[in-house]
Amino acid sequence: MGTIAAEAFGAVDTPFALVDEARLNRNIERMNGVAGRHGVRFRPHVKTAKCREIARKIFGGTGPITVSTLKEAEYFLADGFDDILYAVSVSPAKLERARSIANTGAKLTVLVDSVAAARAVADFQRTPPALGVAIEIDSDGRRAGLKPDDPSVVDIAEILEGAPAVRFWGVVTHAGGSYDCIDEDGIRRMAEQERVAVVEAAEKLRARGFACPNVSVGSTPTLTFAEHLSGVTEARAGVYVFQDLVMANLGVCTLDDIALSVMATVISHRPDKGWIIVDAGGLALSKDHGTAEQARDYGYGAVCDADGRLLPGLTVGKVNQEHGLITAADEAAAATLYSILPIGARVRILPNHACMTAAAYDVYQVIAGEAARQWGRCNGW
Amino acid sequence: MGTIAAEAFGAVDTPFALVDEARLNRNIERMNGVAGRHGVRFRPHVKTAKCREIARKIFGGTGPITVSTLKEAEYFLADGFDDILYAVSVSPAKLERARSIANTGAKLTVLVDSVAAARAVADFQRTPPALGVAIEIDSDGRRAGLKPDDPSVVDIAEILEGAPAVRFWGVVTHAGGSYDCIDEDGIRRMAEQERVAVVEAAEKLRARGFACPNVSVGSTPTLTFAEHLSGVTEARAGVYVFQDLVMANLGVCTLDDIALSVMATVISHRPDKGWIIVDAGGLALSKDHGTAEQARDYGYGAVCDADGRLLPGLTVGKVNQEHGLITAADEAAAATLYSILPIGARVRILPNHACMTAAAYDVYQVIAGEAARQWGRCNGW
Repeated sequence: MGTIAAEAFGAVDTPFALVDEARLNRNIERMNGVAGRHGVRFRPHVKTAKCREIARKIFGGTGPITVSTLKEAEYFLADGFDDILYAVSVSPAKLERARSIANTGAKLTVLVDSVAAARAVADFQRTPPALGVAIEIDSDGRRAGLKPDDPSVVDIAEILEGAPAVRFWGVVTHAGGSYDCIDEDGIRRMAEQERVAVVEAAEKLRARGFACPNVSVGSTPTLTFAEHLSGVTEARAGVYVFQDLVMANLGVCTLDDIALSVMATVISHRPDKGWIIVDAGGLALSKDHGTAEQARDYGYGAVCDADGRLLPGLTVGKVNQEHGLITAADEAAAATLYSILPIGARVRILPNHACMTAAAYDVYQVIAGEAARQWGRCNGW
Repeated sequence: MGTIAAEAFGAVDTPFALVDEARLNRNIERMNGVAGRHGVRFRPHVKTAKCREIARKIFGGTGPITVSTLKEAEYFLADGFDDILYAVSVSPAKLERARSIANTGAKLTVLVDSVAAARAVADFQRTPPALGVAIEIDSDGRRAGLKPDDPSVVDIAEILEGAPAVRFWGVVTHAGGSYDCIDEDGIRRMAEQERVAVVEAAEKLRARGFACPNVSVGSTPTLTFAEHLSGVTEARAGVYVFQDLVMANLGVCTLDDIALSVMATVISHRPDKGWIIVDAGGLALSKDHGTAEQARDYGYGAVCDADGRLLPGLTVGKVNQEHGLITAADEAAAATLYSILPIGARVRILPNHACMTAAAYDVYQVIAGEAARQWGRCNGW
């Protein structure tokens, strides 16, 4: 596989984003299996790859998706994905654009976590087609959402049910706090906390007479390790398609599962300093340093050779805009650094956070068995 | 000005990149004045804005430029900029693309800092047009380049002078260490260190019989505060066109000079947590946290109202992919947070590092006096 990559992509200038299709397929199959075992609808979050070909792989066609921007919604809708949850609190100014999507006949659901936002949607969408609206529940105290027992949850449901062209969709939560766990047990507890919060909110709503048909949870770590999803109707996960170093540190995957890397070229040697420099810097890798406070700090990326074999102990210690400085963890790795990576050699860098790194590219170079392909992605807003 | 921005860009969905043309013009005039006073050629680094309209403002037309990618070189060449220094060590695989640029008649200069890279260029470019080649000198021990007294400097010059289709251009250095200074005196010393290193290299080369016609220094901080540039023939600077919070912390500019901001919308309130959430996260702002170890840590950005007036004490404390969490520095700022920034309100966020933040956008929305404009930019590789 690696040699194919080295040959097939020899004419593509570095840095570029490389996807290993065999790993991607494996990651997709595994998570489809997890969702299947839990007996819930799977609504993958397509914000990681933002790529039609990858989303279609998940379903063997189209299916329900989660998006992080309305631009993603439009991009995937154009490819036939017509059941879309926009999982970032909607601002009133975005409702016109949301309506244009709903006007195509798509089932679009937006998110609110305040009475003010719920009123804005109810006041805006006064004639069909109905916009779906979900209430965001906070399950980990990290970001947005209402606590399950916040009286606003019921107030919002009332506003939504009373609105002429709104479908009250249900409740949604995301335990992003799972990224800060240190082991599988911690993630399992976080998964249960995520489940309990949103099921509690749904039960309170039902006790007040609201149907609350959808109860949605999810993050890659919590879905991977959840023991059960009683009371939940659907699960979401995003980064699992590529996986990354943060996920590997969490035990969610191994380094061999990481399907996205950045191909870069060695451009400078500094034996006096103990580093080599590649042409992938902060723009090509992103400045996400998500492993900084995890068990293993990979700097701005772990380094593999051009064929994808890990070079143990080599990480990108520092980045400037177009420079990445690769350093060795110990003298043994340092001793061979300059001979195995001469000027002009290519390396593959595994990302800390695949969602951030992929966003630097409009195109993925894909190693697909014996073939090389290109897939586009949707960036911006 | 601000009210114009609020009205003119009301229909543009957030997040977007906003450029204040009056500030941009002022920053450009100031740096043109600095370079003029030093009596050196000015070769601005266009990697910050990557925008034809902004580069043309600097010269009132075209002129010599510095680029960080060959894609920038091609983009600016298409607009008539034909004297280009590609200031990142060139990899052998990029020489074919460099030759295509030189074949148009443009004066393209590439950078090397090793005998291996110099040989690669000399072996590759065997027939005219000549490729310019500069030697990178290390003036601060932070990244690439050779120390001025490294014998390789002379070895490289010999290889280049002996090559059939190479122009030995001269020596280049960049004291990126100036970004780590803590005051003006420190920057001034760094500017002198930068100057001395590259002038020393040039003198050694001339003592060995090489003409070394160009001696190039530069960074925004060092050029701003350099006392003199004796022996230097040209200066470079990039981020000054926009300035940013890192530069403000260094005393290179004030907050009122920052010409780039990200317009975002308030989408969630968390009074129980003390934060509000906007729709500009890690992708819209970048995860550069360059002020983290400076005198004042602005998180992932300083917050202004929609008209550009600073909201003292408000910063983006945390980012996820599409969420930015704004927190207040003290109780006074926190007390008014929710009333001055209701759901749907717009804010402008000043960036830590303009080069990284601007890269998330294909288009700048420009406040130009009474008018609103759009300028494109060149991203990718």
